Amino acid sequence: MSAEVIERIRNIAIFSDFSGDPERLGKIAAKLKVRRHAAGSAIITEGEEGDTLFVLNAGSVRILRNTLAGDTFALVNLSADANVYFGEIALIDNDRRSATVTALTDCETLTLARKDYLDLCEEDPVIGYRLTFQLALKLGSALRKSNRDMITMYQALLEEIS
Amino acid sequence: MSAEVIERIRNIAIFSDFSGDPERLGKIAAKLKVRRHAAGSAIITEGEEGDTLFVLNAGSVRILRNTLAGDTFALVNLSADANVYFGEIALIDNDRRSATVTALTDCETLTLARKDYLDLCEEDPVIGYRLTFQLALKLGSALRKSNRDMITMYQALLEEIS
Repeated sequence: MSAEVIERIRNIAIFSDFSGDPERLGKIAAKLKVRRHAAGSAIITEGEEGDTLFVLNAGSVRILRNTLAGDTFALVNLSADANVYFGEIALIDNDRRSATVTALTDCETLTLARKDYLDLCEEDPVIGYRLTFQLALKLGSALRKSNRDMITMYQALLEEIS
Repeated sequence: MSAEVIERIRNIAIFSDFSGDPERLGKIAAKLKVRRHAAGSAIITEGEEGDTLFVLNAGSVRILRNTLAGDTFALVNLSADANVYFGEIALIDNDRRSATVTALTDCETLTLARKDYLDLCEEDPVIGYRLTFQLALKLGSALRKSNRDMITMYQALLEEIS
C-alpha cells in the first residue's frame, strides 16, 4: 500500500492516534482495499448485512434512512475533504445496515473488512485498543446525539397530543 | 482483590472474553473498587460529569431520564442477578451522564474508573482491545435501538400531525 494512502489515513479521526507512528499507519494501510463507486450507485444499502468500514477518499456521498412508511429522508451529505468515514458499526457486530449511503459523484473509498480489523487487533493489540477506542468514541457520541434527538421528538409528540 | 470478585466478573458480558483466563480477570479485578449505596440514593445523576463504570454486584436499581419539560420517566429496573453494568460511556468520553441511576434496595457496586481502565489498556493491550470491543458492542447495540425508537416516534409524530 502506497505512501499516499498512509498520508491520507493520517488525517482520519479513527486513525489519528497513529498520526506520528508511520510503522503502525503502514500496518493499517496494508489492510485497506481501494474501491470505486459510480455517481448514483449505493455504497451501503439499508437493511443489508455488512462487514466493512469505508473511508471516503474522493468524491461526496449522501446518507439516507427509511421511515416505517417506506419514505426516504436524507440525513446528511459528506465530502472527502472532511476526512470522513462511515459504516463503522459493521466492524463490531454483524447486524444489518441502519442507513443507505449513495455516491453523489464518482467516489473512491478505502475499505477495512471486519476480518482484517480483527486480524490487525490480534497482530498488534495496541493498534487494536486505540482503534477500537476511537470506534467506541464515535458510537458513544452518536448515541448521545440520538438520545437528545429522542427527548426532543418525545416533547414534540407530547405537545401535538395535548 | 478477592477470588470472589474474579468469580463475579467472569459472568459480566463486558469481561466475558476473559472467562477462561484467570490471570487477566485478576488484572481487571485489581482495578475495581467496591462501593455501597443506600436504598433511595442516586448512584449516577443525569447531567453530572462522570468517569466510572459500575458493575451491579448486589441489589437492584432503576434507570430514569428527564424530559425537556423536567418530567422524569423510568426506563428500566435492573437487578444484580442479571449480571448488569452501567455508566460505560464515561470510560470513553467525559461528557455528562445521560440518565440517573437510583438504588431501589441497598446496593453494592464494583467500579472501574476511566484512568484505571486506560492504565489497564496500556499495561495489557490485549485486555484493552477486547474490553473496548465489548464496550463498542454495547454502544453499537444501544445506538441501533435508539435509531429504531426514533423511527417509531417519528412515525407517531407524523400520524398525530396529519
